Amino acid sequence: MSGQSEVITTAHGAGGDRMRALIQELILPRFDGARAGSGADAEGGPHSPGLSALDDGAVLPMGNGEAVVLTTDSHVVTPTEFPGGDIGRLAVSGTVNDLAVMGATEGLSLTCSLIVEEGVSLDRVESILDSMAETCEAADCRIVTGDTKVMGSGELDAIAINTAGVGRVPADGFVTDRGMRPGDRIVVSGTLGDHGIALLAAREDFDFGEELMSDVAPVNDLVAAAMDAGTVTAMKDPTRGGFASAINEMAAKADLGVTVEEAALPVTPSVASAGEILGIDPIQVANEGKVVMAVDSDDAEAVLDAMQARPGGEDAAIVGEVTEDHPGRVVLETGFGRRYLSVLEGDPLPRIC
Amino acid sequence: MSGQSEVITTAHGAGGDRMRALIQELILPRFDGARAGSGADAEGGPHSPGLSALDDGAVLPMGNGEAVVLTTDSHVVTPTEFPGGDIGRLAVSGTVNDLAVMGATEGLSLTCSLIVEEGVSLDRVESILDSMAETCEAADCRIVTGDTKVMGSGELDAIAINTAGVGRVPADGFVTDRGMRPGDRIVVSGTLGDHGIALLAAREDFDFGEELMSDVAPVNDLVAAAMDAGTVTAMKDPTRGGFASAINEMAAKADLGVTVEEAALPVTPSVASAGEILGIDPIQVANEGKVVMAVDSDDAEAVLDAMQARPGGEDAAIVGEVTEDHPGRVVLETGFGRRYLSVLEGDPLPRIC
Repeated sequence: MSGQSEVITTAHGAGGDRMRALIQELILPRFDGARAGSGADAEGGPHSPGLSALDDGAVLPMGNGEAVVLTTDSHVVTPTEFPGGDIGRLAVSGTVNDLAVMGATEGLSLTCSLIVEEGVSLDRVESILDSMAETCEAADCRIVTGDTKVMGSGELDAIAINTAGVGRVPADGFVTDRGMRPGDRIVVSGTLGDHGIALLAAREDFDFGEELMSDVAPVNDLVAAAMDAGTVTAMKDPTRGGFASAINEMAAKADLGVTVEEAALPVTPSVASAGEILGIDPIQVANEGKVVMAVDSDDAEAVLDAMQARPGGEDAAIVGEVTEDHPGRVVLETGFGRRYLSVLEGDPLPRIC
Repeated sequence: MSGQSEVITTAHGAGGDRMRALIQELILPRFDGARAGSGADAEGGPHSPGLSALDDGAVLPMGNGEAVVLTTDSHVVTPTEFPGGDIGRLAVSGTVNDLAVMGATEGLSLTCSLIVEEGVSLDRVESILDSMAETCEAADCRIVTGDTKVMGSGELDAIAINTAGVGRVPADGFVTDRGMRPGDRIVVSGTLGDHGIALLAAREDFDFGEELMSDVAPVNDLVAAAMDAGTVTAMKDPTRGGFASAINEMAAKADLGVTVEEAALPVTPSVASAGEILGIDPIQVANEGKVVMAVDSDDAEAVLDAMQARPGGEDAAIVGEVTEDHPGRVVLETGFGRRYLSVLEGDPLPRIC
C-alpha cells in the first residue's frame, strides 16, 4: 500500500462501504476458512455461517442436531446516556438482537467485558451495570462471565463495553441474513431510525420534544413470536447504516432484488421531522430495537399480526417484496417513481453504538 | 457511598484485591443467579461454574452430555508491540488459555472485536491481524465472527481488542480453578513472570538483553498433554497478579492450604535479575503463556514428563503441595523459613494485558 492517508477513519467503523472494504480486504483473507461453515464445511453443511458469511453471528454445529450461535459486539456509544437508554442497555440489546436474528431467542448467555477510564465515577459504572441487569431481565438472558480492564485517564473516552453471546438453535433451525426467496415479503418490526436520530439530536442539543427516544431494546421475544407464526427466511437487525444498509446486504447476499414501498416504511412524525432538520434520512441510520425479515408470502399477514400483538411490535409493517428482477439491488417505490436505495459510504454518525 | 474518591483507579483493573472488590460489590449482586451453575443450578449441577464462580470462563451445559465453555477478555496492553509478542498474539492466547484451563483444548472458536482509534495506520492494524492469524494457526483455533468499531482521535489509545471464545467439553469433563484436593501436587508449566517483567522493561526502556521476552503463547496443546497424562483437579492461567494471585485464588476457593517451595519456582536468570533491579517480584506479575495446575499426587511425575516433552513445557516444575493446614492460605517455604504468600492490592503494572 502507498503511504497516502492509509489510516483508520471514522467511516471504517460506521457500517457502510468503507467498513465492508476493511473487513473484506484486511480481516477475511487472514481468518477465513473458519470451521463454522463458510460455505464448504463438512460438519456445518453449506448453510452454516462462519466468518466469511459476515452474518450477525456464527453458527457452530454441536454434532447432536443442535448448534450454538456465537456473536460479539463492542459498544462505544457517545454520550453513554441518551434519551431512551444508555450504553448498558445497548450492550445487552445489541448482542441479544444479533443472536435473535440468527434464530436463537431463548436461554441466551452473555459475557460482559468492561474497559473503563481511570477517574470515571463508581456511581456512573453502577448506573450502567444496573441498566445491563434490567435489560438482561427483560430479555430473559444471563451474564455468565466477564472481564474488567482499566485504561489511564485520557487513554479512553469513559467506557467501552464488549458483550459476546451464545444461544442454542436446532442445527437446521437457524436463520441467516441471506435466505430470502422470490415472492417473500419484507417485514420490519417497527419504526425506523429512532436510535440514530435520537442520538444525533442529543449530541447536537436539539430539543425535538420528549418523543425523540432511542428504540434500544431486546427483540428476541418479538422474533420468537414471528417465527412461531410463520416461515421467516432471512433476518437482520438494522443497526449501523440503518434499514437501507440491512436490506441492501440481505438482497446482495441472496443475489435477489427487493422492492420497497417508501410510503409503507414506518417512521414516527418526530423522527421524520428531526431527520429533515438534521439532513439525515431515518432509513440510513441505526435502529437498536428492530428487525428486518423476509417472510414467506403466505405467512406474512400472520407474522405481522403476531408481532403487532406484542409490546414493541405495534408498528410492524409489510414494506416490500423479494423479486428476481435487479438482483442484488433494492428499488424504492417513492410514489413519484422508482430509484435504487443506496448505502452510504460512511454513516454520518460515528460512535452510534 | 460517600463522595470521596469513589472513582475507578488503575488498581481496579490490575487483577488484585481492588479488582476483586469491584467485581464482588458492583457486578455480582446485579448479575448473579446465572443459569450456568453458580452453585445451585438444576441443569448445570453444583459444579458448573457461572458468573459467581469467578472462574476463567463459564460452563454452559448443553443437555446431551456435553457443555460449552464460554469466556471473554478485552486486551488493552501498552505498548501494543513488545518483546516476544504484540496485542494480537495476546488477544488470541489470552482467550485460548482461559478456555484451556477449563479443559477445553480443541476445536476452539473465537470472536474478534476491534476498537481502533481514528488515525491509526492500516499497516499497524494489518500487522496485529497477521499476528492474530498466526497465533490462531498455532493454537488450531478459528476466528468465526467479529465486530469493528472506531473511536475518534484522542478518544482511545490506539487499539483495544476483545476476544471471546467457546470450546466444547464433556459435561462432566471440565476443570475448574477450585477443584484441588489435599495431597495434590502443584505444577507450573514453565518460568514465571516473563510477560510482566518484559513489558515493564520495555516501557522503562531498560535493556536487559534479548532474553527478556514475554511468554505470550497459547497453552492448549500443553494442557491437553497434561490432561492426557494424569488427573488434573484444578487449573488457572496466572495472568494479572501472576502466580501469587492464581495460587492464592485456587487455595481460597478450595478452602485448602498450599505450601510452595520457593526454590522450586522456575524463574529465568534474566527475569530474576530484572525483577530485582525493577523492585518487582516475578511471581507477582503476569504470565501469558503459563498454567498452574493441581494434579493428583500419583500422576504428578507423569504430567510433568508429558509437559516437559512439549514445546513450551521444558521448564515445567512441581512447586508445591495441597494441604488441609492453613485453609485458604498459601505458605512459601523460603529455605530461611515460612511466610504467607500474599496478593498485591493492585498490580504494579497497569495495562499489562
